[in-house]
Amino acid sequence: MATEDVVLLDCWASPYCMRVKIALEEKGIKYEERAEDLFGGKSELLLTSNPVYAKVPVLLHKGKPLCESSIIVGYIDETWASPPLLPSCPYARAQAKFWVDYVDKKLFDAGGNIWRTKGEAQEVAVKDFIEILKQLEKVLGDKDFFGGDSFGFVDIITIAITSWFLAFEKFGNFKVEDHAPKLSAWIKRSMQRETVAKVIPDPEKIYEFVINLKKMMGME
Amino acid sequence: MATEDVVLLDCWASPYCMRVKIALEEKGIKYEERAEDLFGGKSELLLTSNPVYAKVPVLLHKGKPLCESSIIVGYIDETWASPPLLPSCPYARAQAKFWVDYVDKKLFDAGGNIWRTKGEAQEVAVKDFIEILKQLEKVLGDKDFFGGDSFGFVDIITIAITSWFLAFEKFGNFKVEDHAPKLSAWIKRSMQRETVAKVIPDPEKIYEFVINLKKMMGME
Repeated sequence: MATEDVVLLDCWASPYCMRVKIALEEKGIKYEERAEDLFGGKSELLLTSNPVYAKVPVLLHKGKPLCESSIIVGYIDETWASPPLLPSCPYARAQAKFWVDYVDKKLFDAGGNIWRTKGEAQEVAVKDFIEILKQLEKVLGDKDFFGGDSFGFVDIITIAITSWFLAFEKFGNFKVEDHAPKLSAWIKRSMQRETVAKVIPDPEKIYEFVINLKKMMGME
Repeated sequence: MATEDVVLLDCWASPYCMRVKIALEEKGIKYEERAEDLFGGKSELLLTSNPVYAKVPVLLHKGKPLCESSIIVGYIDETWASPPLLPSCPYARAQAKFWVDYVDKKLFDAGGNIWRTKGEAQEVAVKDFIEILKQLEKVLGDKDFFGGDSFGFVDIITIAITSWFLAFEKFGNFKVEDHAPKLSAWIKRSMQRETVAKVIPDPEKIYEFVINLKKMMGME
């Protein structure tokens, strides 16, 4: 791995931080992780590096801060060219960005609606979530990856969020595989990549994290 | 202007459509506008071109559809290189994308909260809106444009939404200029550009449009 001055302000359970780590792994860039204690108080460095949102991930490259995970992954792709995460043709790039934006707007929030609710509201949340999965399954089609033959931008953005799928399934009492088998196969395929496997935490641990999160939020 | 096979599915009052038109004007690209009747029924072409959101703007370039205004502007910038709308340095590009994303997430919705509400809720909405203006004013600083000396990506994304500012001011009973004088000066400066002036409609007409919109939504 190349040695660069790259520091990530991180939270292990954040799929948005996982995106940045997978992108850095794909590019073979060494980085230092600095864990933020989001409940115990944010570091001065986080507050000054991301004054607008005060959120992780923040990537510090040669001391200069970058915020918002999809923008950071784009920066990583432009800064370290190989292997490319976006296609070279402007139309295909725009299509990839459309699906990145779709996942950003929909997927994690829809999953949050599952574990934050109960009863009828939760049933609606599960239905909405499954609709999004089906949409993504349609985009994936019979390709190995959203990027086609190679694992790319949309794959990174989406696979990180799948680390929470077990928690969504357990709270919502459904199975992703039953509704989106091709997407499930894509998750397994992507998890076989070393760059992904070493970043994504055990989904059971994420499930425990969500249980604790609910307790802390007084939602039992 | 260059002749290209460029068609825009358009609504005159949509700031998101204005963005695309300003970007095309900046690049000197001829395009055909096809007005969509968003209340009377959307065209088959819109529904098949943007099946996910069924929303304008859609840009058809050589028959191939592109959706989501910021992504379309990015595509325009990559397809027709001159003049560049984004800086060439990856860090400056990421910074510009951060503010595009900020404006996308915040500005138009915050303005909508002003004309959709009354009383105390409206007072809060005006306050929130002014906070966003102040944040943008801070980013602009003493520069001529968000892009520095030249009118760029963040300028296009933001100036389009200012076409609704008069409506926000009238419903919210405040003046943008009183809270963000530098931003106001930037609006005037940008409006002097031919590419902007020919695209942005009369703000009084937008105000009337919002009055009619409220009536149609049963919000008088």
